[in-house]
Amino acid sequence: MRQSKLFTKTFKEVSKDETSFNAKMLIKAGFIDKLAAGIYTFLPLGLRTHNKVCNIIREEMDSIDGQEMAMPALHPKKVWEKTGRWKDFDVLFKFKLANEKEYALGPTHEEVVTPLVKKHVFSYKDLPIAVYHIQTKFRNELRAKAGLLRGREFPMKDLYSFHRDKKDLDNYYEKVKEAYFKIFKRCGLKNVYLTYASGGAFSKYSHEFQALAEKGEDTIYLCQECSVGVNEEIIKEQDCCPLCKNKKLKKEKAIEIGNIFKLGTRFSKPFDLSYIDQKGKKKDVEMGCYGIGTGRLMGTIVETNFDKKGIIWPDLVAPYQIHLVCLDNGKEKVSKAADEIYQTLSDNKLEVFYDDRKDKSPGEKFADADLIGLPVRLVVSSKTIEKNSVEFKERGKEKTELMKIEEVILRLKD
Amino acid sequence: MRQSKLFTKTFKEVSKDETSFNAKMLIKAGFIDKLAAGIYTFLPLGLRTHNKVCNIIREEMDSIDGQEMAMPALHPKKVWEKTGRWKDFDVLFKFKLANEKEYALGPTHEEVVTPLVKKHVFSYKDLPIAVYHIQTKFRNELRAKAGLLRGREFPMKDLYSFHRDKKDLDNYYEKVKEAYFKIFKRCGLKNVYLTYASGGAFSKYSHEFQALAEKGEDTIYLCQECSVGVNEEIIKEQDCCPLCKNKKLKKEKAIEIGNIFKLGTRFSKPFDLSYIDQKGKKKDVEMGCYGIGTGRLMGTIVETNFDKKGIIWPDLVAPYQIHLVCLDNGKEKVSKAADEIYQTLSDNKLEVFYDDRKDKSPGEKFADADLIGLPVRLVVSSKTIEKNSVEFKERGKEKTELMKIEEVILRLKD
Repeated sequence: MRQSKLFTKTFKEVSKDETSFNAKMLIKAGFIDKLAAGIYTFLPLGLRTHNKVCNIIREEMDSIDGQEMAMPALHPKKVWEKTGRWKDFDVLFKFKLANEKEYALGPTHEEVVTPLVKKHVFSYKDLPIAVYHIQTKFRNELRAKAGLLRGREFPMKDLYSFHRDKKDLDNYYEKVKEAYFKIFKRCGLKNVYLTYASGGAFSKYSHEFQALAEKGEDTIYLCQECSVGVNEEIIKEQDCCPLCKNKKLKKEKAIEIGNIFKLGTRFSKPFDLSYIDQKGKKKDVEMGCYGIGTGRLMGTIVETNFDKKGIIWPDLVAPYQIHLVCLDNGKEKVSKAADEIYQTLSDNKLEVFYDDRKDKSPGEKFADADLIGLPVRLVVSSKTIEKNSVEFKERGKEKTELMKIEEVILRLKD
Repeated sequence: MRQSKLFTKTFKEVSKDETSFNAKMLIKAGFIDKLAAGIYTFLPLGLRTHNKVCNIIREEMDSIDGQEMAMPALHPKKVWEKTGRWKDFDVLFKFKLANEKEYALGPTHEEVVTPLVKKHVFSYKDLPIAVYHIQTKFRNELRAKAGLLRGREFPMKDLYSFHRDKKDLDNYYEKVKEAYFKIFKRCGLKNVYLTYASGGAFSKYSHEFQALAEKGEDTIYLCQECSVGVNEEIIKEQDCCPLCKNKKLKKEKAIEIGNIFKLGTRFSKPFDLSYIDQKGKKKDVEMGCYGIGTGRLMGTIVETNFDKKGIIWPDLVAPYQIHLVCLDNGKEKVSKAADEIYQTLSDNKLEVFYDDRKDKSPGEKFADADLIGLPVRLVVSSKTIEKNSVEFKERGKEKTELMKIEEVILRLKD
């Protein structure tokens, strides 16, 4: 992509009503635009990053037999009444349609997925099932000031699993744990802790995945013995690690980036989602649900990967791998060389964002490259083309080195 | 994908409240599920088809310099008031959030994209711009009985273009026309006509793309001279072809699958979207908008590609290219041979839906294959493995032929 063609620009300042760190960074760098509090557009660069996050999640969900579909946002009142959550769910958007019937905008999909799966499950042979979707959720928040971390409208991956019995649910639950750690690792998040949280009526604990972050809105307590986290709610009930009973706990700020929950029969019972077992007996289906806010995950990556100059995108979620910056491109010789390098890199299937702008100074170009934060910056200038090379620099490191383009390709194709 | 693992089943009957042909077909075949009138889930097979439709659209939009992004569904009242459409837009969902402010659920995005683009446009050098997104729209319809053709919640691609002057808009408008015809052709739609429709205040005509369809809800008049269509609204004003003035017009039923519209300065004026031209003068930006309902397009493909037995998916939008059906798979020899063929086809990057179910009769398997409607059916049975072959049949044709697997690959890889 040629930067001269990209319709968005970077900004030095952000409107004062934006107080969230991730949103300020992403707006400045041209990844998102704020329409209203808690409501953002993903601009071209932001959409590319979000798509990469989603595709990593898809691969890991598919690898644990998740089947992708897409459930709607408009939910009829009757399914939410069936579970008692029409009244109880605190941030549910509710309204009447032109047909005078009441609907909600879905903040989660147990009420939709359970009756849907019921249409396809009859016998034990039809289980287990795992289905997921990545879709836009809505929450009627009174305040929404955390950028991509807490939106009124936000994209989310939710996986639901359906099992013959608790044992099968337990096994699957462990598989999801592993898949979640893989996702967060591939997204470049370090310091992610499985954290014990309240489990509701059907399970002693549920689990959150918490990423340590200076400005995190959650407080967690890290067990120094077994490296799990405990959330505040649990700590108020018991002042020790639920796993090893150790009391040496370190208080940390963190951002919740995922949660997994054994639902048991909380939703299968009201919808009568049952099956006939091997002995011909009717049994309730055991369910689990597993969420990752995909926009929130992108916001968390920013909250944990930055320096004074801008974002430092981890390799696999950067919108492009390379920022190719052409200096002196008033000179035809230089701009021609840069064009050729752009072509060569693209032919080698490397993703290149090419700063071919003619009306920007080197200082502005470097500042933009740092702000946007792609993993590798390559500079082409009068100086570099004399040596038939480019200047190679990794974002977040100071060192620059002159390199032949073939070497760049070899280094980055690994 | 192994059919035994797919969580959805096909259905012989559909609930009586579903009266739309496309929805009945797609529900029976396991592509969509109905949550409420005008509100559907895309099941795994349906999501695959919908993704293919969307990816064709993406390629054609990118080829005319469209930049993809993702704008939100929740729109603050103030942007809709600015254009006077808060009151005038007849199917606008409106409601109050917890913060007591009013919002709409977006049925279209002129009110969002115009102020967004304004943040990035200053000079003539910043134009032209074309941006699009594929996103979920909402319309507060009193009745919604046309399946995927008219939803209360529906996915749509909308492209918006921004130009220095009318001439540049006119040129781009023609490019979009070509791109739209390419999209519909690649989606396997025949008999698509550019159709003249009312243009509103800023242009004499706008254009619809209409696909002839027996059960189409629109009536169009085809000019026998110049092969364009004319919609009813225009015909009521003038009883001839707007292009050649010919009065020989043939009345046809059709489905609208796209529309393109020159907006002029209808939206740039209220948002003061202007630029400084070469002479230093401030000018209003000229805009165009271009829509394709992606779910509607999928529904139209079904309404125009079927027989008594089921859907007949065009090659590029079928969820899988091949339905590999194993008969006699109680016999280990046969099921092993089918497994190997499945592997070989998949290794050759062919997309295979593999009916490996052990509890279904050949009749049930053939009925499902016809209903689901993949382009090619391959049968593996005791009979075919004796001849080291598979039975090859194209959906919609009667002829079957025994074929070596290498020949199948050669035939389908083209």
